[in-house]
Amino acid sequence: MTTTVGPASYFDPSRIEELDDRSAELVRRRDRDLGPAYRLFYEQPVHVVRGEGVHLYDPEGNEYLDCYNNVPVVGHAHPRVTEAIATQAARLNTHTRYLHEAVLRYSEDLLATMPGELGHVMFSCTGSEAVDLALRIAKYRTGRRGVIVTRNAYHGVTTETASVSPSLGGLHRLADWVRVVDPPAGPQGAQQFQLQVAQAAADLVAAGEGVAALLVDSIFTSDGILPEPAGLLAPAVAAVRDAGGLYIADEVQAGFARTGEAMWGFQRHGVVPDLVTLGKPMGNGMPVAATVVRPEVVAEFGPEVRFFSTFGGNPVSIAAAQAVLDVIHDEDLQQHAFTVGEQLRKGLRELATRHRAIVDVRVAGLFAGVQLADSDARPATGLALAVMNDLRRRRLLIGTAGLEDDVLKIRPPLPFSADDADRLVTELDNALTALSG
Amino acid sequence: MTTTVGPASYFDPSRIEELDDRSAELVRRRDRDLGPAYRLFYEQPVHVVRGEGVHLYDPEGNEYLDCYNNVPVVGHAHPRVTEAIATQAARLNTHTRYLHEAVLRYSEDLLATMPGELGHVMFSCTGSEAVDLALRIAKYRTGRRGVIVTRNAYHGVTTETASVSPSLGGLHRLADWVRVVDPPAGPQGAQQFQLQVAQAAADLVAAGEGVAALLVDSIFTSDGILPEPAGLLAPAVAAVRDAGGLYIADEVQAGFARTGEAMWGFQRHGVVPDLVTLGKPMGNGMPVAATVVRPEVVAEFGPEVRFFSTFGGNPVSIAAAQAVLDVIHDEDLQQHAFTVGEQLRKGLRELATRHRAIVDVRVAGLFAGVQLADSDARPATGLALAVMNDLRRRRLLIGTAGLEDDVLKIRPPLPFSADDADRLVTELDNALTALSG
Repeated sequence: MTTTVGPASYFDPSRIEELDDRSAELVRRRDRDLGPAYRLFYEQPVHVVRGEGVHLYDPEGNEYLDCYNNVPVVGHAHPRVTEAIATQAARLNTHTRYLHEAVLRYSEDLLATMPGELGHVMFSCTGSEAVDLALRIAKYRTGRRGVIVTRNAYHGVTTETASVSPSLGGLHRLADWVRVVDPPAGPQGAQQFQLQVAQAAADLVAAGEGVAALLVDSIFTSDGILPEPAGLLAPAVAAVRDAGGLYIADEVQAGFARTGEAMWGFQRHGVVPDLVTLGKPMGNGMPVAATVVRPEVVAEFGPEVRFFSTFGGNPVSIAAAQAVLDVIHDEDLQQHAFTVGEQLRKGLRELATRHRAIVDVRVAGLFAGVQLADSDARPATGLALAVMNDLRRRRLLIGTAGLEDDVLKIRPPLPFSADDADRLVTELDNALTALSG
Repeated sequence: MTTTVGPASYFDPSRIEELDDRSAELVRRRDRDLGPAYRLFYEQPVHVVRGEGVHLYDPEGNEYLDCYNNVPVVGHAHPRVTEAIATQAARLNTHTRYLHEAVLRYSEDLLATMPGELGHVMFSCTGSEAVDLALRIAKYRTGRRGVIVTRNAYHGVTTETASVSPSLGGLHRLADWVRVVDPPAGPQGAQQFQLQVAQAAADLVAAGEGVAALLVDSIFTSDGILPEPAGLLAPAVAAVRDAGGLYIADEVQAGFARTGEAMWGFQRHGVVPDLVTLGKPMGNGMPVAATVVRPEVVAEFGPEVRFFSTFGGNPVSIAAAQAVLDVIHDEDLQQHAFTVGEQLRKGLRELATRHRAIVDVRVAGLFAGVQLADSDARPATGLALAVMNDLRRRRLLIGTAGLEDDVLKIRPPLPFSADDADRLVTELDNALTALSG
């Protein structure tokens, strides 16, 4: 057995002796039952038994401030969502081969939040499935295979979506039909991104693949959280369309009011996608996802290939999704995300004036990236992981992002309050002070 | 607009004028909201608002006997399942990057129902995802791409699983790495199947692809429901292993006590798979699925590629799955499926003595296929669809299967009673009499 030197993103199984007995037993059972593919967050894993609002609780009743999970977008165990699930599960749960009104009401409410060009919604269960379907449709529509993604993109775990997710392990080389571009960064980001997309498109054409789609997470989560400036996607979208390709907006991360400025991440950039993929927050934890598409894009795929997902659009998942959409509206969570996000931005920027390790603070609503570097301006991966693990000991949960894992990823449930933001900034201050001491 | 001549599997949108106003409005909204990929069962779609046990109800309170849906395996809205979902949803719903005991307890209970060689379980949300992951693992393990499936196989709707599902539309040609074999039928079925699998394997080797896996639905649902004789899979499994390939048992259809004779379809055939895929009935409608695997098969994939599904193995889905497993055990549904299945077999065989159109009756537990042919022994597709639509008017829901859609597919929730079986046989008798009159 080897021991990892320094902090890690994931629990190192060789350090099982350092855990309390109860956690150690669960880790042993995980290894035995689930096998070697599964990993736990943090050097010291968190054992959760209950959630409420922005808090998670361990078996001893310790409270954790959840600054990480975007899936419970309206808060852990939101009573309106759990009530909707319970009521519908006791009544009916079946599929879309029968008539059922709820899926239509939800579709109409969802489509009403998007530009009019996006006319149809197709339901599946996970973001992976939503992106997989978007790629199937884009390839069928264009008759071409080429897909352009960013350097550290993550879009899913099906065979197809893993192929366009360079951030995953096991991709020894990219498929012939995939081209990778740098994510947009810095003041010239939009232009450089456009140039690279145009170049990748030309390369795909030259290789005989042609361009099916540009697929981007509207907030570049795994590339390090890059929301700024608003509008930066527009030139690249124009470039891919010039090459005959479609633009797929992956909203699994940026969607559902997260950015505060808009319901959907792409709206901040003034573009209208050909396809939009939705996942994680859509059902507050219920497996539900969707591919939203312009009608003309699915006009042939629909009748010729068809699509049916047994669980996609089932009444219980839809009940959860409807409650989420209603709560976002009724609790004005988009405005809330904007307001608290701006406060968080101020707090983080103030920290940056005192901690030299913070070299950039990027915020859009309740999605923040805090980039860390060492004194030679190199990515401070070790420090970022140490901060994450230190905050976990202080019972605040965050993650990391970026090709070098040098960006603190802050992405709480949207009911995150001004006080929660203050607490996070204070504890981050403490962690950075302690670690640089 | 064209009108379809004769009976159809799916509702023909050009016949919307024949529907009642309420159904017609829902159909119009579906077309507008969901687009052209979605289809409805039956010439006259069913509008469902409630389910209980083996019954579904429309808005007028009409009761339908559900002889079709295997997803609600322990019965629609089973109180133990709905209670488990409601309780857990109100408590916590998160992911497997934190420690949580329920997923381990369920894994252990599930693995205890399988041969000891199958040691790890990996969770996802749909059968498509479970098969997709099984193929990823098989290809990684063998370093080869070749996959052998049956002529009318259905294994999912992701890009990868659709590639091995010739029963879907839109597959203008099979991928280079897919080979199709005839499903086993007739007294020489097992040997012919072995021969074809061996030949397909040799062909894949000759083509430079090599063999990654033989992937089969353990009851050949979409090929027409072919359960007999028990043991028929063994020679083909040996053949694929001789060629260095793995055997993936797709238990999305045959699993969870359906066949009465065993918990898993592969057990009837005396084989132990390398990978097993689970889906539809696993959570009684909650989106939950799994890939069960021999530890040695995932030993490299696990640490090198890893796998994480945000919703896979979440506490609410697992609570539903645990309740399903417990109910199958506590209500002795496997024995029940066997007993009622044998009665159904007798009733269907008796019908076959009086209706010449019935040329074969194939039953394993509560999964029955009734094959229909015309007087020249040709597949009676039209009659099968007419029977299905006639039974729907009599408020019994069945489906069809087989390359030619000439097989009545009967696959009710497992609490289907002896009286339900009698009613089905009686109404099928009436339908056949009416349609041949």
